[in-house]
Amino acid sequence: MQRYFIPTNYDEHDRASIEVAGEIFHHMIRVMRMKIGEQVYLVFNQKHTVVAEITTVAEEQAFLKEVREVAWETELPVRVSLFCGFPKGDKLELITQKSTELGASQVFGFPSKTSVVKWNEKKRLNREQRLNKIAKEAAEQSHRTAFPTVRLLETQKELFEELSAFDHILVAYEEAAKKGERSQLIQTLQQVRKGERLAFVFGPEGGLSPDEVALLEEAGGKVCSLGPRILRTETAPFYALSAVSFQLEMLN
Amino acid sequence: MQRYFIPTNYDEHDRASIEVAGEIFHHMIRVMRMKIGEQVYLVFNQKHTVVAEITTVAEEQAFLKEVREVAWETELPVRVSLFCGFPKGDKLELITQKSTELGASQVFGFPSKTSVVKWNEKKRLNREQRLNKIAKEAAEQSHRTAFPTVRLLETQKELFEELSAFDHILVAYEEAAKKGERSQLIQTLQQVRKGERLAFVFGPEGGLSPDEVALLEEAGGKVCSLGPRILRTETAPFYALSAVSFQLEMLN
Repeated sequence: MQRYFIPTNYDEHDRASIEVAGEIFHHMIRVMRMKIGEQVYLVFNQKHTVVAEITTVAEEQAFLKEVREVAWETELPVRVSLFCGFPKGDKLELITQKSTELGASQVFGFPSKTSVVKWNEKKRLNREQRLNKIAKEAAEQSHRTAFPTVRLLETQKELFEELSAFDHILVAYEEAAKKGERSQLIQTLQQVRKGERLAFVFGPEGGLSPDEVALLEEAGGKVCSLGPRILRTETAPFYALSAVSFQLEMLN
Repeated sequence: MQRYFIPTNYDEHDRASIEVAGEIFHHMIRVMRMKIGEQVYLVFNQKHTVVAEITTVAEEQAFLKEVREVAWETELPVRVSLFCGFPKGDKLELITQKSTELGASQVFGFPSKTSVVKWNEKKRLNREQRLNKIAKEAAEQSHRTAFPTVRLLETQKELFEELSAFDHILVAYEEAAKKGERSQLIQTLQQVRKGERLAFVFGPEGGLSPDEVALLEEAGGKVCSLGPRILRTETAPFYALSAVSFQLEMLN
């Protein structure tokens, strides 16, 4: 069933007549060609979700009535943000889409020492906009009740400013995998409490430099491996988020 | 460091002079332009791994001497095979590459009821060859000591023949996620023993049909969810393999 994010608060007095207009109306009625009697999910202000049925279709808006509330929790119990050293090509698109499906709250790109990508301000902002669109679509498709925000940072200074707000910072480091480190990820996932903020930092293709790792450790980051195999820069976030889900949604 | 799969048995008498020719020679010397003194990983018959140094470069072959053995275990303790209902476009390429990084032993495609893809014999075999090449490259890149084989099955009959050889079969089913099923994956991963064979079955974009799920259950399959979010057909294998690694390589 199609899922729409309604950018207003849920109001229980409107249950019998919920109005949609603009972009959502356009997609629902013009693109998907939905008719009276068809049902959709409506997600209000990133939280409350209902199943609603189309009752009236006008020129510029449609009205729906609530059929039932949806209780099903699809958000991770902790807020996970990814910080990815700018990778090559369209890998950030793939990371954004898959990480959204896997439950990320935020995706950041940052200029790592070994990143080869250079964008001017305009290109960076265009890219950011496109990535946010991908995140929103993936959130709808995966039945999430919140969609992640994507930001492309200009400097490493911004990276460290952002990181200062986190309860836990894990730094995925290839050298840790090679040295047989296997316990930090579990240790952190067993410590983290509901509602806390957890950051994962990933290097680009060339990996994080030892200097960068040292700075991240000074900022409270803990180096971890993601299993014994060497994962590509775009694959590491999939492992990290799956492990968070497995430990906190399945084992707990 | 570059990694090459040597299709012969490791012979400890050859430690001082290991010959490489053909494709490996070509890649090492012509493509990568390696010189005397440079080091590579050599993986013999999908098991034994050594670091070796180039000592001699001739017209058609090169010789290396072993520097040290590599003990580091990069293979999952259980053999995990994926069975993916033929998805659209080039998603099997992405699934093959990422699943190899994440430790899969085999990747199968099969015609599911909702698969829209139809290939003739020639196209299917070409595709299979291409996917096997992707698997091999990804295995080298992720430091694995074995590379998965990829097969595209022609019929569902073949699917069930293959499945009959497995100790455990998990069927990823969207309806299970929606109904709140959260325990089967863990239960199976806690039961599985070292060396056993575990199969995961995934539907294509349209999902497995209830008929197919019933047949898979008759064949010993157990329906499971992969967390509460609805994952795309190509994302589900990443979650499954990451969970296997997390449970069997990190928690154990």
